[in-house]
Amino acid sequence: MGKLYVVGIGPGGLDYMTLKAVKAIEESEVIVGYTKYIEFINPLIKDKAVVSTGMRGEVERCKQALELAKDKVVSIVSTGDAGIYGMAGLILEMREDEEVEVIPGVTASSAAASIVGAPLMHDNCNISLSDLMTPYDLIKKRVSLAAEGDFIISLYNPKSHGRPLYLKECMDIIRNHRQGNTPVAVVKNALRDGEKSTIFTLETFDDSEVDMFSIVIIGNSKSYIKDGQFITPRGYQV
Amino acid sequence: MGKLYVVGIGPGGLDYMTLKAVKAIEESEVIVGYTKYIEFINPLIKDKAVVSTGMRGEVERCKQALELAKDKVVSIVSTGDAGIYGMAGLILEMREDEEVEVIPGVTASSAAASIVGAPLMHDNCNISLSDLMTPYDLIKKRVSLAAEGDFIISLYNPKSHGRPLYLKECMDIIRNHRQGNTPVAVVKNALRDGEKSTIFTLETFDDSEVDMFSIVIIGNSKSYIKDGQFITPRGYQV
Ligand SMILES: C[S@@+](CC[C@H](N)C(=O)[O-])C[C@H]1O[C@@H](n2cnc3c(N)ncnc32)[C@H](O)[C@@H]1O
Ligand SMILES: C[S@@+](CC[C@H](N)C(=O)[O-])C[C@H]1O[C@@H](n2cnc3c(N)ncnc32)[C@H](O)[C@@H]1O
Repeated sequence: MGKLYVVGIGPGGLDYMTLKAVKAIEESEVIVGYTKYIEFINPLIKDKAVVSTGMRGEVERCKQALELAKDKVVSIVSTGDAGIYGMAGLILEMREDEEVEVIPGVTASSAAASIVGAPLMHDNCNISLSDLMTPYDLIKKRVSLAAEGDFIISLYNPKSHGRPLYLKECMDIIRNHRQGNTPVAVVKNALRDGEKSTIFTLETFDDSEVDMFSIVIIGNSKSYIKDGQFITPRGYQV
Repeated sequence: MGKLYVVGIGPGGLDYMTLKAVKAIEESEVIVGYTKYIEFINPLIKDKAVVSTGMRGEVERCKQALELAKDKVVSIVSTGDAGIYGMAGLILEMREDEEVEVIPGVTASSAAASIVGAPLMHDNCNISLSDLMTPYDLIKKRVSLAAEGDFIISLYNPKSHGRPLYLKECMDIIRNHRQGNTPVAVVKNALRDGEKSTIFTLETFDDSEVDMFSIVIIGNSKSYIKDGQFITPRGYQV
């Protein structure tokens, strides 16, 4: 009998994987995943069989993983948490009677937050700006409601060549609800090679360095910057 | 020179800590934290000094940790992610010139999601129902806007003796925006001893087993239940 682990490997640096994720990879005979993500865990793979595919091959990749898992122990990997914009959903949608275990991971917003301070200390939401699967009008509606509700907002997939203006437009929506001095963090490659972070405010925000390997976090009305750290107070009397 | 690690230990089971969190604990001379959370990492503590305090001693606990970190290596622990309703914010607010490193962890919503399926696959938000630090009117406003925006909603601190009715009232707000067959998961003690999960719908939801060790996840308009798993489709054509 085979088994399929759907593994969230965390932000990319090996140290930020859970022990459980490491064990699942070690136990697996075959590792399936997007080529770039497989590289992050290369030291764990050794001489295992690898089925790696390009971006956008998601359905095919899941079909293969499920097929292999009928008689082998297989891991299909996502960065961050496999259950947040990762592979867990599609696998469970397509599953017939294969044994599947989802292993959660540290998602990008948590990873990025830890680098710039403590921006996510209060009610917060994750929104993807990718319109491959979601109409842009619904994305904008969500950004607007999240801003109105004074949520801290983490923008996944903030910018790609196909939609260069969405991020600017969404930041304008947020500006309608928040003051100019609200902190905004851009974190690229959080907790893996190539890490780079910048803290702006809504007023000074510049999206020129934002790409698909970045996440953007916008504070709530209480967030502030202290000694270069982005802090959202939880509300204790200090 | 000392150092303070603000460590997210994940949901509680040792296997769900990151390698980095384990290393920080091992490197530390003193471990500071709420008594119950210290128990989760007992096997790692061995003969280290432990400063444990009851619930509600947050400011005092942070003050002690910062004081100790002036000349010792210290870890202050939170469950889940230290940066989400954890200790990272208060430590950074109170910090003067101590060296501080925040280590992210798997937050409760990710942990709980992995047990019941893949509910968080699309835009989602975390809301705490604790009114110690947030006026109840603002909590209700956030729940309402999140429901209107069709976000998947994870409710942290869903119920306590002091506010037995908030959860019921917030679920009623959500019912104004979502259909009765929307999946709702209650997960208690996710990925640690005493784990228990139940999948309801908005119609059948029963809050009698919900307590402070539980999290409640409400699906979006596309979420469904298949073979006992709570799935939110990402939108791929399967
Ligand atoms: C398809 S989503 C996958 C999210 C992933 N499953 C998670 O939970 O983090 C890809 C997006 O996640 C964000 N992301 C993932 N890893 C990141 C990292 N290490 N640093 C910054 N952003 C990251 C970026 O916004 C990227 O465009
Ligand atoms: C003060 S908050 C701490 C959150 C934590 N820092 C995190 O990121 O998960 C405490 C609340 O988190 C949720 N929680 C934490 N760990 C949990 C677990 N293992 N299972 C279910 N809920 C959990 C519960 O809703 C609890 O009332």
